[in-house]
Amino acid sequence: MASESEAQRALQYEQTLMYGRYTQDLGTFAKDEAARLRLQEGDTPRPRRPSELLEYTQGRCAPCRVCALQCQRFLISKVGEDWVFLILLGLVMALVSWAMDFAIATCLQAQKWMYGGLDTNVLLQYMAWVTYPTVLITFSAGFTQILAPQAVGSGIPEMKTILRGVVLKEYLTLKTFVAKVIGLTCALGSGMPLGKEGPFVHIASMCAALLSRFLSLFGGFYENEARNIEMLAAACAVGVGCCFAAPIGGVLFSIEVTSTFFAVRNYWRGFLAATFSAFIFRVLAVWNKDEETITALFKTRFRLDFPFDLQELPAFAVIGIASGFGGALFVYLNRKIVQFMRRQKTINRFLMKKRLLFPALVTLIISTLTFPPGFGQFMAGQLTQKDTLVTLFDNQTWAKQGLSDEFEYLGILEAWRHPRSNVFVTLVVFILMKFWMSALATTIPVPCGAFMPVFVIGAAFGRLVGESMAAWFPDGIHTESNTYRIVPGGYAVVGAAALSGAVTHTVSTAVIVFELTGQISHILPVMIAVILANAVAQSLQPSLYDSIIRIKKLPYLPELGWGHHEKYNVRVEDIMVRDIRYVTLNCRYRDLQQVLHSTKMKNLPLVESAESMILLGSIERAQVGALLSNQLSPQRRLLTLRQKVLSEDGHRLSDSSIRFQISTEASSGSPARPALRKPLKPALKRVPSSPADSPPAGAADHTGIALKSLFCANSTAEPTEAQGTAYHKAKRVRISIVEEMVLGDKMTPAEILEWEEQQLDQLVDFSSAKIDPAPFQLVEHTSLHKTHTIFSLLGLDHAFVTSIGRLVGMVSLKELRKAIEGSVTAKGVKVRPPLASFRDSTASTSDADTTALRQLWDRHQHHPMPREASPGGDDDDDTPKGQ
Amino acid sequence: MASESEAQRALQYEQTLMYGRYTQDLGTFAKDEAARLRLQEGDTPRPRRPSELLEYTQGRCAPCRVCALQCQRFLISKVGEDWVFLILLGLVMALVSWAMDFAIATCLQAQKWMYGGLDTNVLLQYMAWVTYPTVLITFSAGFTQILAPQAVGSGIPEMKTILRGVVLKEYLTLKTFVAKVIGLTCALGSGMPLGKEGPFVHIASMCAALLSRFLSLFGGFYENEARNIEMLAAACAVGVGCCFAAPIGGVLFSIEVTSTFFAVRNYWRGFLAATFSAFIFRVLAVWNKDEETITALFKTRFRLDFPFDLQELPAFAVIGIASGFGGALFVYLNRKIVQFMRRQKTINRFLMKKRLLFPALVTLIISTLTFPPGFGQFMAGQLTQKDTLVTLFDNQTWAKQGLSDEFEYLGILEAWRHPRSNVFVTLVVFILMKFWMSALATTIPVPCGAFMPVFVIGAAFGRLVGESMAAWFPDGIHTESNTYRIVPGGYAVVGAAALSGAVTHTVSTAVIVFELTGQISHILPVMIAVILANAVAQSLQPSLYDSIIRIKKLPYLPELGWGHHEKYNVRVEDIMVRDIRYVTLNCRYRDLQQVLHSTKMKNLPLVESAESMILLGSIERAQVGALLSNQLSPQRRLLTLRQKVLSEDGHRLSDSSIRFQISTEASSGSPARPALRKPLKPALKRVPSSPADSPPAGAADHTGIALKSLFCANSTAEPTEAQGTAYHKAKRVRISIVEEMVLGDKMTPAEILEWEEQQLDQLVDFSSAKIDPAPFQLVEHTSLHKTHTIFSLLGLDHAFVTSIGRLVGMVSLKELRKAIEGSVTAKGVKVRPPLASFRDSTASTSDADTTALRQLWDRHQHHPMPREASPGGDDDDDTPKGQ
Repeated sequence: MASESEAQRALQYEQTLMYGRYTQDLGTFAKDEAARLRLQEGDTPRPRRPSELLEYTQGRCAPCRVCALQCQRFLISKVGEDWVFLILLGLVMALVSWAMDFAIATCLQAQKWMYGGLDTNVLLQYMAWVTYPTVLITFSAGFTQILAPQAVGSGIPEMKTILRGVVLKEYLTLKTFVAKVIGLTCALGSGMPLGKEGPFVHIASMCAALLSRFLSLFGGFYENEARNIEMLAAACAVGVGCCFAAPIGGVLFSIEVTSTFFAVRNYWRGFLAATFSAFIFRVLAVWNKDEETITALFKTRFRLDFPFDLQELPAFAVIGIASGFGGALFVYLNRKIVQFMRRQKTINRFLMKKRLLFPALVTLIISTLTFPPGFGQFMAGQLTQKDTLVTLFDNQTWAKQGLSDEFEYLGILEAWRHPRSNVFVTLVVFILMKFWMSALATTIPVPCGAFMPVFVIGAAFGRLVGESMAAWFPDGIHTESNTYRIVPGGYAVVGAAALSGAVTHTVSTAVIVFELTGQISHILPVMIAVILANAVAQSLQPSLYDSIIRIKKLPYLPELGWGHHEKYNVRVEDIMVRDIRYVTLNCRYRDLQQVLHSTKMKNLPLVESAESMILLGSIERAQVGALLSNQLSPQRRLLTLRQKVLSEDGHRLSDSSIRFQISTEASSGSPARPALRKPLKPALKRVPSSPADSPPAGAADHTGIALKSLFCANSTAEPTEAQGTAYHKAKRVRISIVEEMVLGDKMTPAEILEWEEQQLDQLVDFSSAKIDPAPFQLVEHTSLHKTHTIFSLLGLDHAFVTSIGRLVGMVSLKELRKAIEGSVTAKGVKVRPPLASFRDSTASTSDADTTALRQLWDRHQHHPMPREASPGGDDDDDTPKGQ
Repeated sequence: MASESEAQRALQYEQTLMYGRYTQDLGTFAKDEAARLRLQEGDTPRPRRPSELLEYTQGRCAPCRVCALQCQRFLISKVGEDWVFLILLGLVMALVSWAMDFAIATCLQAQKWMYGGLDTNVLLQYMAWVTYPTVLITFSAGFTQILAPQAVGSGIPEMKTILRGVVLKEYLTLKTFVAKVIGLTCALGSGMPLGKEGPFVHIASMCAALLSRFLSLFGGFYENEARNIEMLAAACAVGVGCCFAAPIGGVLFSIEVTSTFFAVRNYWRGFLAATFSAFIFRVLAVWNKDEETITALFKTRFRLDFPFDLQELPAFAVIGIASGFGGALFVYLNRKIVQFMRRQKTINRFLMKKRLLFPALVTLIISTLTFPPGFGQFMAGQLTQKDTLVTLFDNQTWAKQGLSDEFEYLGILEAWRHPRSNVFVTLVVFILMKFWMSALATTIPVPCGAFMPVFVIGAAFGRLVGESMAAWFPDGIHTESNTYRIVPGGYAVVGAAALSGAVTHTVSTAVIVFELTGQISHILPVMIAVILANAVAQSLQPSLYDSIIRIKKLPYLPELGWGHHEKYNVRVEDIMVRDIRYVTLNCRYRDLQQVLHSTKMKNLPLVESAESMILLGSIERAQVGALLSNQLSPQRRLLTLRQKVLSEDGHRLSDSSIRFQISTEASSGSPARPALRKPLKPALKRVPSSPADSPPAGAADHTGIALKSLFCANSTAEPTEAQGTAYHKAKRVRISIVEEMVLGDKMTPAEILEWEEQQLDQLVDFSSAKIDPAPFQLVEHTSLHKTHTIFSLLGLDHAFVTSIGRLVGMVSLKELRKAIEGSVTAKGVKVRPPLASFRDSTASTSDADTTALRQLWDRHQHHPMPREASPGGDDDDDTPKGQ
């Protein structure tokens, strides 16, 4: 008995530990625990846990444990705070971002150094210029491919999907993190037109996931799903924030790109983390003596007193509209390249067999074209992306008086000058070449984003318009008093914001450019251009991220877009599936089999009866399968045999039922009917009974009552372990093993078939199945617009359509998507609602639910519903009269 | 017959008009129509509509009508576009804002002119200085009081409540608009420390509401509720945007202040409208020659290359933390003043009797204290709010070397200098005095906001810290190479953002200051200060707007705040009301009466039976009342009498039933049982039968079958009017009037009592009641956190708690609020969910629902549920076998 009290204390200890978890997690926890136990039960029913626990506690003394407990509690109370997590996240991401920037700069420096050192021989120079990026990109592609193929690409589409509640495996692991960081550094270090912004959103999210897993070592706080989603949303903001040192723009951009509905209470998380991250990121630059103080990343020095003339606004509007078309074209081009590469089977087979050939080939082409002494001289090929942006945002007018050669190019600006052509030609060539290069480069299977390349192209386009305006109006437009010259740099800023806004379908690129340049004086032109660009681009193409989501066939819900009026006229009844398979409460196992064969729905509705069609809940397909396979399992067949043997031997039976009554105190009432309704509260503390052990309650065996309690003990002893019955359980299991050895399988195949047919005709016992007791319901007249709102608000996957409790149809994401656009099928991913998952967590606490369910079922089973005078004033549903 | 075809054509015409409405509106429309018809029926059953329609169409010829129709359609297609509305809204608001600014400036100019003109006599000067604002404020208070008391105050709390879906009467009317605009102009023209930002949010919303009502003259597009909510959200952004010429900050601020969950798809609306509005607002200033070009409102000219030193950051953090405490104190002070004024009965009685005395008194005190030759000289009393802000954001250091008199004050800066004290004293006095003055002034019952006063105080506080820093480090902190002096203006910007952020609990004040000053160089200090200020203020006090919401007892849902972990441990079962009254499907009218007496719930759950407790839907309290009063109505008594008479006279009966069969073509099946299930689609087109006419289907009268069809005709002829039976209806009503005159009320009171008792014992017929077929359901184990999320996501008022279809409890806003904080009861306002109102619109389409319901009810009535082998593969729920 000494060991038993020890075990009890240990269990209490575990209980206090569990207290740190959010209660809502208990459901999930219980579910996992149950699944684990069931699994254990599946292979070997060995009494593992008690012995483990004994071992665990015997090594320590009580006061020591109390002290450790208090320390742990204090740690939990501190570590569990949101702000600690957010600041840690910001800090880590700032360090990662800075370190990566440093590494990338070093890589680019090395290429420049090689290129510069070999200036005696053009061929050698070319070789160096071309080989270096090819090697880096190939390495990046290979490394990513081997370590974690999930790290390929931007990551924003995946994050959007994950934040919608879809579980994408392996997307937030340490392996992917390492692959993405190293792959991205190499890819950007190659000097290809690739960006770091999208991948940074992914990296930050992975960082948050890993950090929360790490911090959960100190306490259970980080296991809450809703909280994790909130933290991931904040992480996305951090990703953009520390990439551009743009906290506000980061938060807004991440919201626009990843969310459909945003919780304002979650706002400060993003701001706190992104601000801290951007702060540290810039402070590191100061400490490294790169900067004198904290300033913007691409600081501009436009004049403040007269940033632009009112009459220049049409030019800004033109930039906006042109960028809109350009953005749509970019998305289209990018998609077409991907689709072309997929469709061309010969190319595909060739390239895909040697997976690294395609990246190498693309890099070769692009770097050949940018080779500075070659074609690169017409497109400022020698400048890195960062230098390009710095020069484009430059304060001076390059094409002064339209005579470019009169102007003194300074430093890196020199790259834009060409002796035999003017700056306009250079800019046009740059824009055209970079456009297709970027669209092509972003399809390479390395971690890379498209934001920065697009941003640079936009800046170049803006600069082109600006230079044209400056050439057209050499003395400025303003005719009164002072002469204010046109500032082409301002146009570049507007163009950058407009084109990146058009490609990503966001307005917050405006804020990002203000934060990047450190100047907000062009706010109105930027806003006008961005809004116009968005209006044009959104009406032509999906955003780049949505386009990738569709290419990758991730589950998604299309946006309703800019005022689709016709959507208000479509109703749920027009799009719902009427012919749905369902499970009735009083069905037989044969019916379950039929339903499983006839539908592929992941969730089956459970109705009261085929006549009433009253929706009681929904049951997962897997659960139905489990019920069925349990009913037909060899174990049960064995039990049936054993039952026959046992029915002759009354002695052992009474013995075991007495033992049962001792062992399960709190839950002893559960198999017996009269007490069924009571245990609503303590129910959560028990894990659901595993299907492998549940008794065939619907079976019409006469001898089974006492026997049933044996098996009930079998199924309830497991969970009540936490209440001190572990000892008994160990004993019991040992006995059952002995029994099994004694009996063996003595049935012939024909007998088995007969037995199975017989089993299939039994009524289904739902008591062991997890039932979602409150699936989302719509009514037939709900409009498509509202359905869309609700689906995106709650992250639903499907909803049942009811009419006063009666099930009449079902709408899933697929129907909704079809109704909005066309038909694209998503597969291979499991959709789980993030906010509506409150049902998930409760579906597992099946004891309370199954109690109610079984009661209902029993009532239906034994006597038709009595029709009495209605109670009216009788409201106490815990003690119903009719029972 | 000619007139009949005319009427039919007219009805078709009306139908095409209705086509423009969103279909989801049809539900609401039908409901309103039904309510209207019922009302009409209530006082006089006259056949009004057909005659009206005839009159309406006879005046026009057919081709003319077709042409007009096409024109109208074209107009609708253009006017219905969202962007047209948004641009119109932006334009109107910009004009209003600019005109008001102009009027306010003129008012302030007038005061200055009076004050300046009377400089020979200090007493006269004082009289002018004091009388002018007193008169203006008194006028403003009186005018608002008389025209629309709803215009008093900020308006943001009310908008927050309205956007949550609560209907606040009279808050969005033309009267309130006029009162608010004129009242606000006068109040701000007085020079009191009041702001225009909050009221502008309200004005913009009213403007949007009025505009949508105006545009709906051209088409039905603007009658969609969901759309109106979206437009109101955009209008809030416009309000802030055109007030500060800050489009981005406006959008963000309005989101933070008014929403809990924000639809990202709604984002562009706010940006488009706010940008256009800000643009026009600033263009007007350019056209008026106030400005040379479009620039920021309070343009600063801080140096760009070295905005601040890293070592200054602790000072900025101090500003943030102090502002947090200051902001909380301001909210506390403001609330205490309001509560003090309410509690002090003697003062209250005195002041409230003469409602204008309080504003006048407050204005007198404040203007006396700011009198420039008096105490005002120590607090820059002569400066207007705008001038104060301009001087505070000034580029120069006032306390150069700590010796204020060495410094040359220029222009309006002169006001801050005092010969016998230095600038620190002036600033401290200014901050202290303005602090309580602003808190007091914002309690005056005039349209006014608190944002600007707080903003100015924050700027002064920041300036104070900045000047202190400048005095402490005369040569700047940076020790290397260059000397960068400290810029106190930057501190003022940080202080302004931090204090206003603390008072309003928003982060977006940071963006607003960038847009207001046109410089973003201080982004990191501003962000850090704002976040710290928010962290401090949010942990101490609610935001100013939430504080006002609580004072005004508006319905609200408190935020969960900065990581309340304990909320995760509370579950629905801990807070839900278990003892709820419900209505059963097979109850009697007596039970309804009991339920109505025993509860005050606005929505009663409808369960299948007291034993099963399966939740079928929810029914409004008013509906239950209507059912009851209908059952006991004198009309029905009369009918019972008439019925006796009629039962002797078979001739007339058959006559009327034949007439009925002619008149109702589409809906003739509805009273007969076999066809009950069919009309799901056309159901929407009919308005629900009004309770006053519905037959007592549960009555056990034998003679009633043919008679019932008469009354069914009575109830269905009304809605099918739209299908061409108006003519018959007119005839029928005339007949029933004749009948009524013939019969009269012949019962004695005792007979009536007996009859009523008899009626109460009948089973309730729910077929005429509107039933919400899908009320929101939670399960017992849902956490408080998730419940909060769902309530705020869907704007719910209450939710039923179910356990596999069984009703076990109910949670309303009240319980949730209690669980989160304490207990505050909201009353006097009707809560209606904005997004979840999809149920509202469908609840009215009761025909289809009642069909299903009645069928269920019939089944329960006549035979207990048959228990058969479950169908399994039988899924066609439209043709059930059991029926």
